[in-house]
Amino acid sequence: MDIEAVADRILDGDRRALARAITLVESGREDHRAEARALLERLKGAGRQALRIGLSGTPGVGKSTFIESFGLMLVKAGLRVAVLAVDPSSARSGGSILGDKTRMEFLSREPAAFIRPSPSQTQLGGVARRTREAVALCEAAGFDVVLIETVGVGQSETVVAEMSDLFVLLLAPAGGDELQGVKRGIMEMADLILVNKADGDLKSAATRTCADYAGALRLLRKRAQDPEGYPKAMTVSALEEHGLSVAWEAMCELNDWRRANGHFDGTRARQARHWFAEDVRQGLLARLQTGEMRSVMDALAAEVEAGQMTPSAAAAEALEKLGG
Amino acid sequence: MDIEAVADRILDGDRRALARAITLVESGREDHRAEARALLERLKGAGRQALRIGLSGTPGVGKSTFIESFGLMLVKAGLRVAVLAVDPSSARSGGSILGDKTRMEFLSREPAAFIRPSPSQTQLGGVARRTREAVALCEAAGFDVVLIETVGVGQSETVVAEMSDLFVLLLAPAGGDELQGVKRGIMEMADLILVNKADGDLKSAATRTCADYAGALRLLRKRAQDPEGYPKAMTVSALEEHGLSVAWEAMCELNDWRRANGHFDGTRARQARHWFAEDVRQGLLARLQTGEMRSVMDALAAEVEAGQMTPSAAAAEALEKLGG
Repeated sequence: MDIEAVADRILDGDRRALARAITLVESGREDHRAEARALLERLKGAGRQALRIGLSGTPGVGKSTFIESFGLMLVKAGLRVAVLAVDPSSARSGGSILGDKTRMEFLSREPAAFIRPSPSQTQLGGVARRTREAVALCEAAGFDVVLIETVGVGQSETVVAEMSDLFVLLLAPAGGDELQGVKRGIMEMADLILVNKADGDLKSAATRTCADYAGALRLLRKRAQDPEGYPKAMTVSALEEHGLSVAWEAMCELNDWRRANGHFDGTRARQARHWFAEDVRQGLLARLQTGEMRSVMDALAAEVEAGQMTPSAAAAEALEKLGG
Repeated sequence: MDIEAVADRILDGDRRALARAITLVESGREDHRAEARALLERLKGAGRQALRIGLSGTPGVGKSTFIESFGLMLVKAGLRVAVLAVDPSSARSGGSILGDKTRMEFLSREPAAFIRPSPSQTQLGGVARRTREAVALCEAAGFDVVLIETVGVGQSETVVAEMSDLFVLLLAPAGGDELQGVKRGIMEMADLILVNKADGDLKSAATRTCADYAGALRLLRKRAQDPEGYPKAMTVSALEEHGLSVAWEAMCELNDWRRANGHFDGTRARQARHWFAEDVRQGLLARLQTGEMRSVMDALAAEVEAGQMTPSAAAAEALEKLGG
């Protein structure tokens, strides 16, 4: 691949070049990885930054409808919007939450929008790196907003929050007055909680749920990166396209404040450091499962299972083979 | 250290030699580690096996009283009992759940009992290896039963279950009819659920709680390593020393069945393999924080934070330095 030529096309906003580059960063082949790293280093120089919005919501909260409505609103306002996904389930099912572009039928037809399904990977760590690199490619391609979608299960929210400037939690109206099933750790990551489906029969339930979460958010410890009034809970209706512009204004207000107070750059620097360390850890552990080392590990494991070696002695031998 | 001499004394059941050997396996010094591995390899040949009982219970369920009563009962029956601990909190507090031997005042005075506090370590992974090696030392010293205690928080139950032949969950009577706070994953690891404090005012609550858990256990998927009727829930009173012998009989019945059906050896082999792989992983990751590599990581992290390198490029450079 001609890195320079591809880089120039991406910087020109060429969608096909962008799509091919994302395919490149998704590849596990060693030569592809080297090319991907070279491409990312080359594009970094452009210094382009999108607003990265992480969006989490369990199935049924209307995530697709929200992204469709919210994305179209941004496009109409003259912004270019990319949608990526971190899908912890795709590893098992082989499918992906964004595989079906008809989920966002209108948004996907917009020239200023770019929708990319989640890569199928066996490990969340691998998905994380690929998505993070895809975000960087979208930024270089001149997108103003990158939405990173995930379903609210397992650790994927943490992964998405760790690569986002803003983390938005999308919820459905709750039946009772309980804060249903949202773990405290997830609440603590949220910059904005949006209670969707504030329309029709569910409108009053949405208002009540929103008040409950607003109350819960006030009980959380104040974070340095938040101005007065944040994190915040609001109601929206993706279906009736209601509350979306207010939500966007809140995101901009929060982001502007953070930029003005050094938190935007600070958070990005901390995140970059985190992903660097995580990449090294993943890369190290991957060595155990490749090539000659895999045979060494299997042979030692067999000795340990047979009681011929203690786990500690076998581990020491494996580590020595790994250049200890 | 004269490995041969220490090994012989441990095999003779010398408690001071055992205590010193445990101190050796707890050490992080590289020369100590090499000695510890040599000692464990030497002792492995004796082929002694204790019944390893993992015991988990949150603070307040009467864990100390249970271990005291249960341990004394076993000692009176002519068995030698060792008590070890995996304490995830000791890393933070510097203390340990077994630091105060007066917690088990009578048991600690018994010549046939050996109580050892949890080592203070910063990482659960490190605590796991040290405890596992201490278990092996106690087995070599001829103990019949090794109790491995942990508080029911975080991942420590998984660590303890992964080094036990039997995993016992100690619970207190619940107020209502709810299964309070026991995660499904923990339930699934339990071979025996003991509802303690089945005495005085709490007796009927304990019976009810026990019935609730018995019902919940019946809903779990049948495991290959369980005979009919297991996992099982029972009430005990550590205070009144009631139900303890019945609980012990259940443990023996389950263990005998597993031994007769190959599950005892099978589980130990699988556990040994698990700890081998885990030790290799921990050892690999530890390299990032030691010696020259630590400076390399810090320097690269600084470049990543400053935006001079992408996380991916910096990670590739670090991995190359690590002998990629």
